[in-house]
Amino acid sequence: MAYLNENYLKLQSGYLFPEIARRVREFCDRNASAAKRLIRCGIGDVTEPLPAAVIEAMHKAVDELGHRETFRGYGPEQGYDFIRQKIAQHDFRDRGIDVADDEIFLSDGSKCDCGFILDILGSNNRIAITDPVYPVYVDTNVMAGHTGAPRKDGSYEGIVYLPCNEPNGFVPKPPKEKVDLVYLCFPNNPTGAVASREQLMEWVGYARNNDAIILFDAAYEAYISDPKIPHSIFEIDGARECAIEFRSFSKTGGFTGVRCGFTVMPKTLLGKTTDGRRLPLHPLWHRRWSTKANSVSYPVQRAAEALYSDAGRKQVRALVDHYMGNARILGEAARQAGLKVFGGTNAPYIWVGTPDKMTSWEMFDHMLNELNIVVTPGSGFGAQGEGYIRISAFNSRENAEEAGRRLAAFKII
Amino acid sequence: MAYLNENYLKLQSGYLFPEIARRVREFCDRNASAAKRLIRCGIGDVTEPLPAAVIEAMHKAVDELGHRETFRGYGPEQGYDFIRQKIAQHDFRDRGIDVADDEIFLSDGSKCDCGFILDILGSNNRIAITDPVYPVYVDTNVMAGHTGAPRKDGSYEGIVYLPCNEPNGFVPKPPKEKVDLVYLCFPNNPTGAVASREQLMEWVGYARNNDAIILFDAAYEAYISDPKIPHSIFEIDGARECAIEFRSFSKTGGFTGVRCGFTVMPKTLLGKTTDGRRLPLHPLWHRRWSTKANSVSYPVQRAAEALYSDAGRKQVRALVDHYMGNARILGEAARQAGLKVFGGTNAPYIWVGTPDKMTSWEMFDHMLNELNIVVTPGSGFGAQGEGYIRISAFNSRENAEEAGRRLAAFKII
Repeated sequence: MAYLNENYLKLQSGYLFPEIARRVREFCDRNASAAKRLIRCGIGDVTEPLPAAVIEAMHKAVDELGHRETFRGYGPEQGYDFIRQKIAQHDFRDRGIDVADDEIFLSDGSKCDCGFILDILGSNNRIAITDPVYPVYVDTNVMAGHTGAPRKDGSYEGIVYLPCNEPNGFVPKPPKEKVDLVYLCFPNNPTGAVASREQLMEWVGYARNNDAIILFDAAYEAYISDPKIPHSIFEIDGARECAIEFRSFSKTGGFTGVRCGFTVMPKTLLGKTTDGRRLPLHPLWHRRWSTKANSVSYPVQRAAEALYSDAGRKQVRALVDHYMGNARILGEAARQAGLKVFGGTNAPYIWVGTPDKMTSWEMFDHMLNELNIVVTPGSGFGAQGEGYIRISAFNSRENAEEAGRRLAAFKII
Repeated sequence: MAYLNENYLKLQSGYLFPEIARRVREFCDRNASAAKRLIRCGIGDVTEPLPAAVIEAMHKAVDELGHRETFRGYGPEQGYDFIRQKIAQHDFRDRGIDVADDEIFLSDGSKCDCGFILDILGSNNRIAITDPVYPVYVDTNVMAGHTGAPRKDGSYEGIVYLPCNEPNGFVPKPPKEKVDLVYLCFPNNPTGAVASREQLMEWVGYARNNDAIILFDAAYEAYISDPKIPHSIFEIDGARECAIEFRSFSKTGGFTGVRCGFTVMPKTLLGKTTDGRRLPLHPLWHRRWSTKANSVSYPVQRAAEALYSDAGRKQVRALVDHYMGNARILGEAARQAGLKVFGGTNAPYIWVGTPDKMTSWEMFDHMLNELNIVVTPGSGFGAQGEGYIRISAFNSRENAEEAGRRLAAFKII
C-alpha cells in the first residue's frame, strides 16, 4: 500500500477559517432571527464589487477567447509579459525599487505561493515564524515535514517562534540564534502592525549576517497610510540578496474570488547546497512554474493588468479608502467600549485585547451570540494571540457602522 | 544560508515544451518567410474558440462580481458545490459510476494536480511510470526527491519504467515486482493508445493485490470513440479502493488558457503509515486544498459549469469532432507518406515512427526546416519514445489539411 504523507497527521484540528465557518453555521441554524442580524468581520474577505476597469478588461478578454483570431490557449507558465511588466514597473521601478520583469512570477494567490515556495527550499532549514501568524506559513511547513510534533498550545517543535506582543509593539526583533528562513508579514495579519524602515533594516542586516532568507508577505501594503513605512522589503538596501516578497491582488482589487497574486524572486538571491555551493533560486522557481503550472486564467491576467491603468488605480484607491474608513469606525467603537485597540491605521485589521481575561474563543462566542458579530479569535493565529480578537474592516459602510454601534455598547454579561 | 531543494538540480535540461518553443523561435528568427508558413502540431494546445455557452457564462459571472449584491469573494477551497455536483452527476453517476460530489476537487488544471498529489503521499513509495510519458509525472517526482540520479538516457534511478512499445501496443502489463504508485494515462499522451476494459481490470487487480495506488490521468477521455473503451478508471470494479483520477477541461472545453480541471479522490481509498495504520487519503487531500489554495477563479468555475448544460455539451462534442476530423486527415497523410502510424482514433495525438533510423529530434528538425511543421519529438517523452514523433490534431481544419498535404509528400532528403 502506498505510504501517505504522515506529516499531515501532525496538523492541529481544523484550519482556522473552516472552524469559524462551522461555528457560525451552527449559530445560524439555532437562531434564525439573530442570523439575519449577523455581521461578518471574521475572515478577511472583501465585500465590495470589482473595480469597473477590471470588469471591462475581463469582458474584453472573455470575448477574445470567443473568437478564433484572438483565442489564447497555454500562456507562459510564469505569466504573460504584459502583466509581469506592469507589476515590475508600477509597484517597484516607479518607486525606485530595482525589480526586473522576469523577477515577477504570477500566481493564483499569495496563499498558494506561501505553500509553493517550500517546493524549491531544502528540508533542512531552521525556520522562524512570528506568533501570532497567518496559519498558512506554519501549516505548510508542518505538511512539508519541516517541524516536529505539535505541543499542547498548538505550536510545533522545531520552529523558532518570534513572539509579537504589546511590549514589542507586535514587531519582533531578530532572534539571538541563527535561523535560515524567516516569515515576516507587514502590514501584519492579524495584528495590523507595521514595521518601520529601521526595523526592516535590522531584519535585512540579520538575514545577511546569518545567510538567512526573509519570506516577506506584503499582501496588505496598499493599506499603508504613513509615508515613512516601506511598502516592500526591496526598499531596504541589500534585500535583493536575502528576500522573496509575496504580493496579492485580493485586498487591492478585491480579487479574493478572482484569484491572482505574485512573488518577487530576485535573480541575486542565492541558496546553498549541502556540499557548500551557492546557487541562485530564480532558475529553480522558474522551473517549478514551468513543470507544475500553466499560470493563471487569461481573463484574470487581463483583470490584474487593468488594476494598473489610470482608472484602475483610482478605483483601487477608492476601495482601500473605503475599507480604511471602516477600520476607523470599528477601531473607534472598540475604544469607546473600553477595549485595548491596536492596528487599523496602516492595515485593514484591528487587533483587540479581550477584557476580564476572557479567552479569544470565549470572546468570539460572546460576540457571535450577544452582538451577532463574527470576529476571528486571536488564539487561532498562535499561542501569543490568546487574549485577543481580530476584527476585519472588510465590509460595507452600513455594516461597519452597525457593527460599530453594537461594539461601542459592548458589555460582558 | 538557506538550503535549496537539491532535487531540482537532478532535472534534465529544459522542460520539453519550452525547449521546442526555443527551437521554433530560433527558426522563425532565421527564416522570416518560412515562419509565415509554419503550422504548429507540437504542443497539445487547442486552437478553436471557447464554446458559446462558456463565453455567456463567463460574462454573466463577471457581471455578478461587478455588483455588490452578487459579488463573491473567497469560495470553498475545494470548489463550489454547483460545479462539484455537475461533474459528479454528468461525468460519473449518469454513467453508472459511483462518485460523490465531495469526492470531486476542482483545480486550475490537471498538470497542477499531477504535482499537487505528491503533497499527500509519502516519500518512501516505489513509483512506476510508463515510458514514453507526459514529462510532468517524472519531473514532479524528481523535484520531490522520490528518485535517484539521472542516467544518460534521461531516465532516473529509483523509478520503475514500464516500456510502451509496438509489441505491447503501447499499453504495458503490470510489472512482476511490487510498486506502490503507478501513473497510467489513457487515452495516452503521447502515443494515442487506449486501454481496454480487460487491460484496466488487470491493472486494478494488480493494484489491489499489491496495495498500490493507480494515478489515472483521463484528460483525454472525451476523445474516445470506441464504445467498449472505459472513460474512467472507476468503471472498473474495485478501483475506488486503489485509484485517483485526474480530469481536465483543457481538451474538452478548450480551457488551456482558462485553466480548470479536477481530481476524483474516493473516500474509500486508503494509504498506510510507517507504523502500519491504514488511513483514508480523502481528508488529507481536503486539508491540502484548505491550507494551500482558495480554489479556482469564480468566472472559471461558472465556465466549467456551462460545459455541462445542454448547449455546452453539444458545443464540446462539436469541438472534439472537429479535432478528431483533423486527426483522421493527419493520420491518413502520414500513412500515405509511408510512415508507421499509431493512435489518432481514440485520442487527438498521432504517434509516428521516424523513417531510416532518424532520431526524434532529427525528424523534428527536418519537419521544422523542410515542411515547416512543428511536431513533438518522441524522445522528449522518455527513452522509449526515441524513434517517434507526436503530431497533435489540435488545429484549424485549414491548417490540418495543409499540414496533411505537406506530410503526405514527406521525403527524407
